Amino acid sequence: MPTTVHAYAAPEAGAPFETFEYDLPDLGPHDVDIAVEHCGICHSDLSMQQNEWGLTAYPFVPGHEVAGRIKSVGEHVKHLKAGDRVGLGWHSAYCMTCDSCMGGHHNMCSDYEQTIVGRHGGFADLVRAKAEAVFKVPDELDLKETGPLLCGGITVFNPMVQFGVRPTDSVAVVGIGGLGHLALKFANAWGCHVTAFTSESKMQEAKDLGAHETIDSRDPNGVKSCEGRFDYIVSTVNVKLDWNAYIKALSARGRMHYVGAVMEPLDLEVFPLIFGQKQVSGSPVGSPSTINTMLRFAARHGIGATTEHFKMSDVNDAMEHLESGKARYRVVLDV
Amino acid sequence: MPTTVHAYAAPEAGAPFETFEYDLPDLGPHDVDIAVEHCGICHSDLSMQQNEWGLTAYPFVPGHEVAGRIKSVGEHVKHLKAGDRVGLGWHSAYCMTCDSCMGGHHNMCSDYEQTIVGRHGGFADLVRAKAEAVFKVPDELDLKETGPLLCGGITVFNPMVQFGVRPTDSVAVVGIGGLGHLALKFANAWGCHVTAFTSESKMQEAKDLGAHETIDSRDPNGVKSCEGRFDYIVSTVNVKLDWNAYIKALSARGRMHYVGAVMEPLDLEVFPLIFGQKQVSGSPVGSPSTINTMLRFAARHGIGATTEHFKMSDVNDAMEHLESGKARYRVVLDV
Repeated sequence: MPTTVHAYAAPEAGAPFETFEYDLPDLGPHDVDIAVEHCGICHSDLSMQQNEWGLTAYPFVPGHEVAGRIKSVGEHVKHLKAGDRVGLGWHSAYCMTCDSCMGGHHNMCSDYEQTIVGRHGGFADLVRAKAEAVFKVPDELDLKETGPLLCGGITVFNPMVQFGVRPTDSVAVVGIGGLGHLALKFANAWGCHVTAFTSESKMQEAKDLGAHETIDSRDPNGVKSCEGRFDYIVSTVNVKLDWNAYIKALSARGRMHYVGAVMEPLDLEVFPLIFGQKQVSGSPVGSPSTINTMLRFAARHGIGATTEHFKMSDVNDAMEHLESGKARYRVVLDV
Repeated sequence: MPTTVHAYAAPEAGAPFETFEYDLPDLGPHDVDIAVEHCGICHSDLSMQQNEWGLTAYPFVPGHEVAGRIKSVGEHVKHLKAGDRVGLGWHSAYCMTCDSCMGGHHNMCSDYEQTIVGRHGGFADLVRAKAEAVFKVPDELDLKETGPLLCGGITVFNPMVQFGVRPTDSVAVVGIGGLGHLALKFANAWGCHVTAFTSESKMQEAKDLGAHETIDSRDPNGVKSCEGRFDYIVSTVNVKLDWNAYIKALSARGRMHYVGAVMEPLDLEVFPLIFGQKQVSGSPVGSPSTINTMLRFAARHGIGATTEHFKMSDVNDAMEHLESGKARYRVVLDV
């Protein structure tokens, strides 16, 4: 007996969303079905809708910041049961046996499935995934604010774990949007000194979100006034900035980290990297153990996304609001 | 009573070396005088002779790969004594009190002195330095092959320590010259699988130096055939290569490291850094504790530079040999 999913899909590149139904086959032994309650919208949902990366299959159902409850589990699933409050992010399955998976680096799995690539995502009443890619949400967290942790949140939390950001570090966050606002919250709770590079209009909000200082990202002298100040800078923006000025703003042995998918190559001078023993890096979302670590950390510190809510049936209005750049700070669809 | 030093100096930018004498004042309490026996020639001696970096004072006495014996020590020097076999590298003094020095990162000292910047180096019968920048050479090492460890050697050894290269790693060395040939020896002794990117003419020699594999660095398909293979790539060259192809040749979570001072900005694509959680970094020479670690490691594994020797009075012939690119692999002047 197939399960019918009621979703919203873009029928072709850039087209508005329409109601869309599809049937799922019988639940596999390692599958779980999640009754979606809330689903955050990430910029990559928009990029995928418009097929910017050439990866999109239509009809396209976005949504990879899912919060909901387990509806049913396959016969081999032991750690989740119907009714559990759970989240699902960018990955919906891992191979579980490659070197990366075996080493705890499932986010580097050579054969993962991506929730909205070649399959249907969470703009729907139900979404299916492999149990290993679905995470119990601690009781302290509100499901309304939790979906965005599963993609935006883990994207900024993961490098803090992987690359060892320390509470004694001076941290700067470039771009205060869906990812950046969570980076401010996490870095503040981490014990760091936190600086936000943002526009004049968001400075007070950035402080409310956890920044101790704000610098105007549109003033070319802003970053230039920070020479040698930051141990860790995380860029969440997708536009080219004066990266060499940011490298100069790093302390000796500092790190410039990219989670924002900027298309233009980085034009980095080598001498400042050599003389300052500096590092540049990038990273995607995290692995299961890092996601669970994040959820526990978020629960202890009361961290959720700062959200604006739309009914899922108003998905086109919600996408338009996201595109306008006015979201404060994550748009979430409610079923 | 002043000490007269008999040195070789370039009187102006690019001019040949001539004999040059200068007097040193009385030995300070933390100074040591080294009777130079051998001095390696590094490419930066040539760059400085020609004032490529705008840092050179003339008359210019190069030489920062010094091996010799302590001639005399200042009254507060406890850990060195006359007759000790010692080496001196790029730094000739540290402030010893800044955060970097106090943290063991003297190579990031905000007030270090550089052996050939604003002072006279080791193309001479004697060179003076602060005792903390002078290192005892283990008995197992031959002074003739040790000078180049103090700059070329530590430059490739330092990042292996700082960034945690592991014996299980697959390592590639780009450019097999003064620095690269020592990178091959160290990486081999470190237990790594070692690949050399070099020209056809050096392939057999690269294997003799410690490479398990060689790839033609002038064949554009060479590096492209290596997708996902290396955990750590160290570039010792000073010319622009197809860096994005090298980034692709890294395994997930791999590191591309620069010690070669290439002038053109790195034109790095961001997506491969993000999806592969990859890192790019640079570093200069190492700190005292890393230099001592290197000297002990070199002694245990019988590692010295592979050298060609010229009399110091033939310094102009030696520099010409270096400039020709024919050195195998480090030119050393003997007093």
